[in-house]
Amino acid sequence: MTLSAPPLSVSTLTPRLLLGPGPSPVSDRVLRALARPTLGHLDPQFLALLDDVSRRLREVFGTANEMTFAVSGTGSAGMQAALANVLERGDTAIIGIHGYFGVRMADMARRLGAEVVEVHGKWGGVLESEQLVEAHRANPHAKVLSVVHAETSTGAQQPLDEVGAHLSGTDTLFLVDAVTSLGGVPVRVDDRNIDVCYSATQKCLGAPPGLAPITFSARAVDRVRARATPVSSWYLDITLLWKYLGVEHVYHHTASSNLFYALHEALTEIEEEGLSARHDRHLEVGSLLQRELASRGFGSFTDPASRLPQLTAARLPEGREEGPLRAALLEVHGIEVGGGLGPAKGVVWRIGLMGHGARKESVERLLEAVDALGVGEP
Amino acid sequence: MTLSAPPLSVSTLTPRLLLGPGPSPVSDRVLRALARPTLGHLDPQFLALLDDVSRRLREVFGTANEMTFAVSGTGSAGMQAALANVLERGDTAIIGIHGYFGVRMADMARRLGAEVVEVHGKWGGVLESEQLVEAHRANPHAKVLSVVHAETSTGAQQPLDEVGAHLSGTDTLFLVDAVTSLGGVPVRVDDRNIDVCYSATQKCLGAPPGLAPITFSARAVDRVRARATPVSSWYLDITLLWKYLGVEHVYHHTASSNLFYALHEALTEIEEEGLSARHDRHLEVGSLLQRELASRGFGSFTDPASRLPQLTAARLPEGREEGPLRAALLEVHGIEVGGGLGPAKGVVWRIGLMGHGARKESVERLLEAVDALGVGEP
Repeated sequence: MTLSAPPLSVSTLTPRLLLGPGPSPVSDRVLRALARPTLGHLDPQFLALLDDVSRRLREVFGTANEMTFAVSGTGSAGMQAALANVLERGDTAIIGIHGYFGVRMADMARRLGAEVVEVHGKWGGVLESEQLVEAHRANPHAKVLSVVHAETSTGAQQPLDEVGAHLSGTDTLFLVDAVTSLGGVPVRVDDRNIDVCYSATQKCLGAPPGLAPITFSARAVDRVRARATPVSSWYLDITLLWKYLGVEHVYHHTASSNLFYALHEALTEIEEEGLSARHDRHLEVGSLLQRELASRGFGSFTDPASRLPQLTAARLPEGREEGPLRAALLEVHGIEVGGGLGPAKGVVWRIGLMGHGARKESVERLLEAVDALGVGEP
Repeated sequence: MTLSAPPLSVSTLTPRLLLGPGPSPVSDRVLRALARPTLGHLDPQFLALLDDVSRRLREVFGTANEMTFAVSGTGSAGMQAALANVLERGDTAIIGIHGYFGVRMADMARRLGAEVVEVHGKWGGVLESEQLVEAHRANPHAKVLSVVHAETSTGAQQPLDEVGAHLSGTDTLFLVDAVTSLGGVPVRVDDRNIDVCYSATQKCLGAPPGLAPITFSARAVDRVRARATPVSSWYLDITLLWKYLGVEHVYHHTASSNLFYALHEALTEIEEEGLSARHDRHLEVGSLLQRELASRGFGSFTDPASRLPQLTAARLPEGREEGPLRAALLEVHGIEVGGGLGPAKGVVWRIGLMGHGARKESVERLLEAVDALGVGEP
């Protein structure tokens, strides 16, 4: 109400350096692609682009899965699509929770009518593989076991190898949230026997928000096909989605050509850089930031052994009030970082160095501002 | 596979004149807004923009409804959100079907566990108000009665006034699909006692696809709050969505600032033009096209009394094969029109003159191409 006069104009918005938990900075090249003239959702040129996006996403996910595409919604729509297609009412879902997004998964699964077995780990730490394997041994009939690979709320990286190896010989699908990991650290879907994996475009992939890359293994597809009841969401039914976005290109919804342009361009950037070089870049820049923050008296909310390079949950030095300092960082220095969630609320900054933002200049600009504001210890 | 070499680049895509059933052409000004630097989903500037989008959407919907926002998905996500929030398992839904999108609504409602009472009208015609009122009298306990205002599959405009007046004194909510109508013909949500109404950005609003404007009346919100079971889709739960996009701005998902920029700019264009002038423009240009096509031997798939100006379902003259001619129109003349769906398949072109595309130049370019290809009768 108070904001309606004078009228807002998009052209007057002040750009920020996006060093929060996402969205990450989008390169000029990707923004230019975004603004190419809109094409119809069934135009042969656009259908070819969809196929190319799927091909490039397979590379980034590290999978040969045919059913690999981008959902027309944000990363949370990816989570919703993953769970809604796999779960039927009465199914059991084992869900690992070591942060905010594990809690969200459990909420979603319950709304879908699943019996949820929660496996808890400390926020900032990870779940022991043995914990998850034990939970599965106690619930061998579970339809799915889900974990968050890179917990955006805590900055912790969850190990996946042992759980994937264990589940591959069972009837339980392995579902992994790679929203903040894909493009930043190796995900390697096939090597890790992951059955369902989804991400978002606006983190380490370097595109604007609005699409959720997702992939389903052949055995996951078989399980979805064998459902006794239809998927409750027509919009996110992957069988319909894949008929449109993949194999037959039969109309389902009006996919946003502009968002796909941007994703395609971002995936081209990744291909040109090389996935492994991109992972190295995230590691190098993230480590630099973490060292520099430590030298200024910041602590780590995340267990040292589990820290992600691309998302740092840094405890502010003693006596520093995070809220006002974060607002000053944004308003005075034009830099966005995130606040904490759950037990991390009020005590941490979540600093993302993701995609196009994972570069030394970002660290330098942030540290200059941190020093100017007197956030660190002298 | 065959398309992967040489590598595709977004910059080599050939623009088209979009005269199909949507997306419609996006103005340069809106494309420029789309490509402004991405902002965080909780940036105060972006939150002010969200508020302004809601305010402007209220104007276009013709409503004072507080809960008015844009869903982070396409028009079909709007339909999904509308039905998923209103319906619980076992509820009765009366669904008017006079085209493809009515069929879709019924499918969605059934997946959500509703008992669906289908009320059928001829494709190309509309449902008699008395038919719908009778169906309601026979099912007074129905939770919702849904119709499609502008059937994108047939080009017919459904009357709403009598049904709205009838339902306003009952416990049944009136749900209207305004995907192809909003911004092109008057929707007037409050005048017509509509409780839930959704649209899409890529039709008569003139923005790229990716968002679904939606509005809920106070009594619809009350019914959603009184649900016995949670909404099965966390992603589309309007109570959570409105907490983020409206009142409290509490994090829910990462709304795409870029898509909201474009929508905001398109709504600014509408405000500058004036809603009523915009309706007049659609009417004038659509009537021109319909006259010109008739003079070339095209028929109307739609009952003459029910034709929408912004979407014309034109039967091709005797002996003309629509598929190859439509492909030639696209490939040779760079103009996209749509084919038919259901009973209209193979016999009609669906021609949209929507948003920025609703101008005389579009009609002229189309007719030149039609004449060059010899589609019309000499």
